[in-house]
Amino acid sequence: MGVEGAEDAGIYRIGEHLALVETTDIITPLVDDPFTFGRIAAANALSDVYAMGGRPVTAMNLAFFPACSLPTSVLAAILAGGSDALREAGACLVGGHTVEDSELKFGLAVTGLIDPARIVRNCTARPGDLIVLTKPLGTGIVSTAIKARMIEPALEAEAIGWMSQLNARAAELMVSCRATAATDVTGFGFIGHACEMALGAGLSFRIELSRVPVLAGVAALVDDGMVPAGCYRNREHYAQHVSGSTGDPLLPLFDPQTSGGLLISFAPSDAREFLARSEAAGAFAVLIGEVEPAGGSAIVFT
Amino acid sequence: MGVEGAEDAGIYRIGEHLALVETTDIITPLVDDPFTFGRIAAANALSDVYAMGGRPVTAMNLAFFPACSLPTSVLAAILAGGSDALREAGACLVGGHTVEDSELKFGLAVTGLIDPARIVRNCTARPGDLIVLTKPLGTGIVSTAIKARMIEPALEAEAIGWMSQLNARAAELMVSCRATAATDVTGFGFIGHACEMALGAGLSFRIELSRVPVLAGVAALVDDGMVPAGCYRNREHYAQHVSGSTGDPLLPLFDPQTSGGLLISFAPSDAREFLARSEAAGAFAVLIGEVEPAGGSAIVFT
Repeated sequence: MGVEGAEDAGIYRIGEHLALVETTDIITPLVDDPFTFGRIAAANALSDVYAMGGRPVTAMNLAFFPACSLPTSVLAAILAGGSDALREAGACLVGGHTVEDSELKFGLAVTGLIDPARIVRNCTARPGDLIVLTKPLGTGIVSTAIKARMIEPALEAEAIGWMSQLNARAAELMVSCRATAATDVTGFGFIGHACEMALGAGLSFRIELSRVPVLAGVAALVDDGMVPAGCYRNREHYAQHVSGSTGDPLLPLFDPQTSGGLLISFAPSDAREFLARSEAAGAFAVLIGEVEPAGGSAIVFT
Repeated sequence: MGVEGAEDAGIYRIGEHLALVETTDIITPLVDDPFTFGRIAAANALSDVYAMGGRPVTAMNLAFFPACSLPTSVLAAILAGGSDALREAGACLVGGHTVEDSELKFGLAVTGLIDPARIVRNCTARPGDLIVLTKPLGTGIVSTAIKARMIEPALEAEAIGWMSQLNARAAELMVSCRATAATDVTGFGFIGHACEMALGAGLSFRIELSRVPVLAGVAALVDDGMVPAGCYRNREHYAQHVSGSTGDPLLPLFDPQTSGGLLISFAPSDAREFLARSEAAGAFAVLIGEVEPAGGSAIVFT
């Protein structure tokens, strides 16, 4: 028994073939509808367990609610949205805590189970691996535009759809296809999390920029200035590890994601199997690059 | 596998002899020293696992911090206080989440392990059992006086000592002495939690009022009006279930406790063993009453 590594989630071994995977995340509203907010917050909190190949089993609600300024029906809808995601995940809600608070926030503490021999870490990619991404980018930029009421309804609905989607199926498939490493794309944006994977493995990720999926309409929002502060912070922090491309077209790749997709490396034949099985299952997955021995930069765009 | 009952903490069976015990709690500062606040918040969050006879194994920090108005050294001290309690509990910190927030709050999400056959529930007391309490009452009243700067330093230190203390040893001893039921005394106060135990079992708790331990000096604070709103709320809610005594002398028994003691029922010989072993270990434990068949009230003072 004991704690292992520093990954997307905390791992605690409780037996030869069993470990706990623990994670928690809490977010502020990024959409107007409370049920949808609860659903996205839960998908986001569950994601760290999926990113390691774990299976979520229990969750506790963490709700921060301004009871003086909002009707309790809003809280009920948020909790219902969270429960909806948990039901789909097959995880049991085992409690929680609601705090009377000035600012609305919601999240979960999630416990998953995993076979310690099958943990998918974020620093174990190998040279020659192919790199796959399972959701398009740009939801942070879209959320900024939603708050500014500067969004097309179709793009808003599409972004909400992606954020509401669990990484459950992608996680199951990646384990079954022998992923060598994975992480989920969240606050540090695609480039930040790709950097962590590349630097953690002491390798370089060569990314084909034109293949990286970005929601249609996001480039126009960037032109309109709908860029969250976190996007610029990520660029400031990670631009030093990037070569081959610069400037505004790269901004969506720095965009902080809520409930983003999985970024996964596989041996080439396993990657092809993952892509084929994802396509057969109707699940989004795009081949975006490959892993190389450490060269100049952690992330090299071509 | 599956969820069982509604108790102090959520239980999720993961094997024939193994279940997860999950709980979370978050509190606002009730003392000035940030390390002490972190320590108390952790002892408080761990307590629900102990109340069921479980062993905490992992915890995640949940920190809400006004970074604009407080130096980060305060956050560091709070986290250090929490870690201090986790170390004593033998639990591993496996992560956490810090939210930039207008109001300081801190808590933990805790996962424990328990043998499903040895869970101590709160509704399983039996007629003829004796009732024991393992910490004195009045910490909510003292915390109110601390905030009002109307507190004697010695009483403040004593109350902080009790709130900082883990229920670990009491829990270990109660399991080993075959407790029939238990809960921890927290927000609903002694009477509220005793009511839950009595009503849950369909029985009556006869309590010798003069035996119930209350911190010396708390009665004087009540006379000075240092009574938290939650104390009156608890009285409003639970007074209907109480007979044999009323009025202000009962207020400390309605006082919401943070990191309160365990309230435990045992068969008489087991209770005597628990009291003797607690005394031998230098651990506080007081016999305060007995369990009777349901009579008039859930709680009968004599």
